[in-house]
Amino acid sequence: MELTAYNKEQLIALEQELAQVYAGYRQAGLNLDLTRGKPGGDQLDLSNALDGILQGNYRAADGTDVRNYGGLEGLPEMRALGAEILGVKPSEIIAAGSSSLTLMYQYVQFCLWYGAQGHGTAWKNEGEAIKFLCPVPGYDRHFTICEDLGIEMLTVPMTADGPDMDLVESLVKADPLIKGIWCVPKYSNPSGETYSDAVVTRMAGLGRIAGPNFRIMWDNAYVVHDLDDAPAVLANIMDACRAQGTEHSVCITGSTSKITFAGAGVAFACLSESNLKHFKAWMSAMTIGPDKVNQLRHIRFLGTLEALHAHMQKHRALIQPKFELVFKHLRAGLSGKGMASWTEPKGGYFISFDTLPGLAREVVRLTGEAGVKLTPAGSTFPYKKDPQDSNIRLAPTFPKLAEIDQAMPVFVTAVQLATVRQRLQQL
Amino acid sequence: MELTAYNKEQLIALEQELAQVYAGYRQAGLNLDLTRGKPGGDQLDLSNALDGILQGNYRAADGTDVRNYGGLEGLPEMRALGAEILGVKPSEIIAAGSSSLTLMYQYVQFCLWYGAQGHGTAWKNEGEAIKFLCPVPGYDRHFTICEDLGIEMLTVPMTADGPDMDLVESLVKADPLIKGIWCVPKYSNPSGETYSDAVVTRMAGLGRIAGPNFRIMWDNAYVVHDLDDAPAVLANIMDACRAQGTEHSVCITGSTSKITFAGAGVAFACLSESNLKHFKAWMSAMTIGPDKVNQLRHIRFLGTLEALHAHMQKHRALIQPKFELVFKHLRAGLSGKGMASWTEPKGGYFISFDTLPGLAREVVRLTGEAGVKLTPAGSTFPYKKDPQDSNIRLAPTFPKLAEIDQAMPVFVTAVQLATVRQRLQQL
Repeated sequence: MELTAYNKEQLIALEQELAQVYAGYRQAGLNLDLTRGKPGGDQLDLSNALDGILQGNYRAADGTDVRNYGGLEGLPEMRALGAEILGVKPSEIIAAGSSSLTLMYQYVQFCLWYGAQGHGTAWKNEGEAIKFLCPVPGYDRHFTICEDLGIEMLTVPMTADGPDMDLVESLVKADPLIKGIWCVPKYSNPSGETYSDAVVTRMAGLGRIAGPNFRIMWDNAYVVHDLDDAPAVLANIMDACRAQGTEHSVCITGSTSKITFAGAGVAFACLSESNLKHFKAWMSAMTIGPDKVNQLRHIRFLGTLEALHAHMQKHRALIQPKFELVFKHLRAGLSGKGMASWTEPKGGYFISFDTLPGLAREVVRLTGEAGVKLTPAGSTFPYKKDPQDSNIRLAPTFPKLAEIDQAMPVFVTAVQLATVRQRLQQL
Repeated sequence: MELTAYNKEQLIALEQELAQVYAGYRQAGLNLDLTRGKPGGDQLDLSNALDGILQGNYRAADGTDVRNYGGLEGLPEMRALGAEILGVKPSEIIAAGSSSLTLMYQYVQFCLWYGAQGHGTAWKNEGEAIKFLCPVPGYDRHFTICEDLGIEMLTVPMTADGPDMDLVESLVKADPLIKGIWCVPKYSNPSGETYSDAVVTRMAGLGRIAGPNFRIMWDNAYVVHDLDDAPAVLANIMDACRAQGTEHSVCITGSTSKITFAGAGVAFACLSESNLKHFKAWMSAMTIGPDKVNQLRHIRFLGTLEALHAHMQKHRALIQPKFELVFKHLRAGLSGKGMASWTEPKGGYFISFDTLPGLAREVVRLTGEAGVKLTPAGSTFPYKKDPQDSNIRLAPTFPKLAEIDQAMPVFVTAVQLATVRQRLQQL
């Protein structure tokens, strides 16, 4: 029954009933965690063969001794595999470090203080603080980078096809201080959408509107992280840019963090050859080169793109049931009630959940006090401020199935209870 | 015979004789390299057991699954071992990434743009470009960091006891824009000196002269890299600072790059707890945490500080003969001739060689044209400008003994030839 169909007496009875169920959960003393997009231990086990895989052979394909210094841009074979994964040329990629987040931070910092195409192009020379567009809900760590670097954030709503491109284009046209946009184009964090072909084409066109100093931060974190037999297909941004002469305008990032070991994999940044030349020159002041031993381990372990896809099917087998279990509880407890909406993505690491306006903080509080930790409400918005106070990010990969089965009824009850109480206050 | 004892005719004859020997080397078509401080392949072999050492056990001592995200400051046991190596408290250290150079870059950048103790303390707020003191000869990559960040460099001569502290103190007293000094305090790069206790004490006192915003970049790269039964003993800078209430003024760095694998080891930065708190807060915007899998490998492999010292003895056994061979050639060809001077360090990776003024570039050119690559003259000075044009850095660790035995006569002949030619021109 839809919430709006209840009269006041029915609502009072329902509130009492839910409060009693909720009190029961509180007494159970649960300690469960749905906060972050971390792989589960069983997923990590899939890559245990990494340690020891070199068997004393520390030579890369070109004879490089990976144990010694050098090779700023990463091993050629690692760049080649990264290029295949991300759909760019090997000459457009560096394999550096284990964190794509670090590469994103460094590239934005580089554009801000040094200039993507030399000192004359540094964003800091604009006279005023520059701005980034942030599709919302989005990834909190992107927003933290902007906050840290003093970059003002303007929000743009997500649609089922990706960011609202009419708004994006009109903002970029009107304000030359807008120098970039954050994108998680496939299985977006947290809402799970994949940008449509039309959105990708229009994204690639932004460089023509905004000029040569604009950068799309294309965080393709979930490029091979499908959970469905009919996975989403993302158009190739670099190709779309090349077609429009704007290949300077995109910085693509990715990593093997959720393919092998989280935070101990290999990270990639893809840039046009000209952009990459400038970025590498800067990186050479700060490092002699990345950990090539770990890169060689990854090459030996992952092999080809085909083998990598087969490896990802093993991840899918472990996490798809977790997503399904969350969906099952949400559907059972909340479908057709007019209390909430949520996404059911075909890949990635998150489910985006929306309460009625004004209830996300309260739901997170209620759930937390009953022993189920959720990402703080507001985290999916710049400055941690969700103007509607309605978005909650659910991360089902890390907990075990049995834990999800315990946690989700608590969450669903909290949503129902908070919503009924709000409705009662409004009457 | 001393060069000055030769008359003109004798010099002409000597020049002809040396030119003939040199021409012979050129015809030999050598291809040898004494440029960089890289470990030899046999040294790297010492740590081959790193890969595979985990044997499926990916749990740190506290139960942390090192394959997953988290732990910005590094594994507790890695911090503890780093603290032992570098003589600080575990709470004063982070184990982050594989490059101490990157940590140095990041810390100087942090002090410059963010402020070591909060935004009010950023060096960029000084109004004018700040300055660093650079003991010379020194490490080219320190100077590159300053150049990259727009920090002006002032040189200070090295003495047998370390930097000329009378000059350092008077400069710091006179100019409040001097905000830091680069130090390689043990087996200095390239000259091999170890700072005396008195120099360490006076270094620790700089914070009282220069105020709370001054930083000593204490690059303790060769802390366990002894080549002698009576190794140099470096006083503990953190203790010296604590005694004078200036522990805020030092940033100590180190890594296992020349202990295990070069560029694939574990790097450390040590800061007072208060400095570290600020630095970590900044780092949290750019990374979720370091590669803990590699840290656990290092802990399992290196074990205790005692075991690490035993491991370093194996390195010594491989590289001490290389240093001795260089010394043998230098002594045989240049002792008592008044043509050059050089250091014979008890540890580290380099030998610092001084020609007569105005000859370093010429010697590097002659040596290079005969197929023996040396670090470009000037590299050991800021802006690559050696005002005397006399310093050359020799790096004997990477080439094999037989290669050194081939390369050194070429070098010695080039020094003799260039020196005799200069003398002839001066007559």
